[in-house]
Amino acid sequence: MEELCMDIDQLEREVIRLNNRYARILDDDRLEEWPGLFVDDCRYAIHPRDNYAAGLEGYWLYFDNHAMLRDRVKSLREANLYNIHQDRRIVTGVMVDDVQDDVIRARSAFLILQSDVEGRGRFFCTGEYLDQIVMTEDGLKFKERLVIPDSFNMHGLVAIPL
Amino acid sequence: MEELCMDIDQLEREVIRLNNRYARILDDDRLEEWPGLFVDDCRYAIHPRDNYAAGLEGYWLYFDNHAMLRDRVKSLREANLYNIHQDRRIVTGVMVDDVQDDVIRARSAFLILQSDVEGRGRFFCTGEYLDQIVMTEDGLKFKERLVIPDSFNMHGLVAIPL
Amino acid sequence: MEELCMDIDQLEREVIRLNNRYARILDDDRLEEWPGLFVDDCRYAIHPRDNYAAGLEGYWLYFDNHAMLRDRVKSLREANLYNIHQDRRIVTGVMVDDVQDDVIRARSAFLILQSDVEGRGRFFCTGEYLDQIVMTEDGLKFKERLVIPDSFNMHGLVAIPL
Repeated sequence: MEELCMDIDQLEREVIRLNNRYARILDDDRLEEWPGLFVDDCRYAIHPRDNYAAGLEGYWLYFDNHAMLRDRVKSLREANLYNIHQDRRIVTGVMVDDVQDDVIRARSAFLILQSDVEGRGRFFCTGEYLDQIVMTEDGLKFKERLVIPDSFNMHGLVAIPL
Repeated sequence: MEELCMDIDQLEREVIRLNNRYARILDDDRLEEWPGLFVDDCRYAIHPRDNYAAGLEGYWLYFDNHAMLRDRVKSLREANLYNIHQDRRIVTGVMVDDVQDDVIRARSAFLILQSDVEGRGRFFCTGEYLDQIVMTEDGLKFKERLVIPDSFNMHGLVAIPL
Repeated sequence: MEELCMDIDQLEREVIRLNNRYARILDDDRLEEWPGLFVDDCRYAIHPRDNYAAGLEGYWLYFDNHAMLRDRVKSLREANLYNIHQDRRIVTGVMVDDVQDDVIRARSAFLILQSDVEGRGRFFCTGEYLDQIVMTEDGLKFKERLVIPDSFNMHGLVAIPL
């Protein structure tokens, strides 16, 4: 972890760029690059809003180290048969809430749309990202990304990371 | 009202942040903080595009002072029974059109999605925000926010502010 | 074509503004201003993702000079009867990928929603913009805009430029 020495405007800009890279890597189906957005000692979890708000565990996914992220990608590539589709992530409202001890806390809103093999697009999911972000030699990375989907009834499966 | 002394880049950044705060307060169901985004002598109206474009009144909502905003919040909290749902606001395309006499005129595009109690998400509404924004001791606030929904047939009710 | 003399932050900001102007001109139905976003020697094409990814031509539209853009607008205004609707463009994830020989390569994600004459809004299309942008006396303009829709089954016609 490196020291943060940016003003708030620059910090916000870099957090937005990290979000843009995240969305693009997944939408481009460059899954292998996805773990590289996280530091080694990281947490990635999908926690539907109802459970999250009620303080219940009930995660859809819970990875608490980097190896689990890489395993997920391998499993998606090698083992799973799943519905093929094109994702499109719309990420807005990126806000830096707090910077303490070189950890940036940020939030953003996401909307994911999917197009299926028959070329039909549709709404898939909305929600929020709650992030803890740190500076590394390679720029900003996620220490924690908590994905909070708004809806617990999804059209289809959650195979690819949200 | 304070004097504006920012360059256009800083101004645009602050208008984007105001928009982000607005979206988040409503999506977080922190309705009580919503009036605080407006100055005392303010106007908030929802004016469907067809009526707006034709020069017809036909507002869905028309509040022209701060007390009316606060009453609305109180009424939503205490009196009304309405469909419970989780909103998700996607606000993009924020543009500062003009700055005159310390009033910033800005526009943006919005998309609102909703998830109902059965956890199903769906498209709710698109439209534009037409804003007049001023500087106060507590940062930028809305002097006027005109909400122009694109569609006049909504899936459901407009209870919570758009 | 002018020389680019901006730092990367300023460049990114100006590319975002160009995208915002593009979206707004089309959503405002100011079609006549759309060709003005391109330089004379330009290319605008709509190339569905499946064809694009497979290296097949199969364009929906292919204009390779400015006159073709202006003809399109004229044709839409004077000759065509098409379904009347209100578009709403949500453009996010604008990233500057590369700057070489005064040509900026940028990408962004788009979502287009439409409201029909009966006032019903719906999802229309998602995809990506792949751009080559240059500096002119009148600011940044598109040298090339390649529109890559994610889905090849559209609800309705593509009349107005995406």
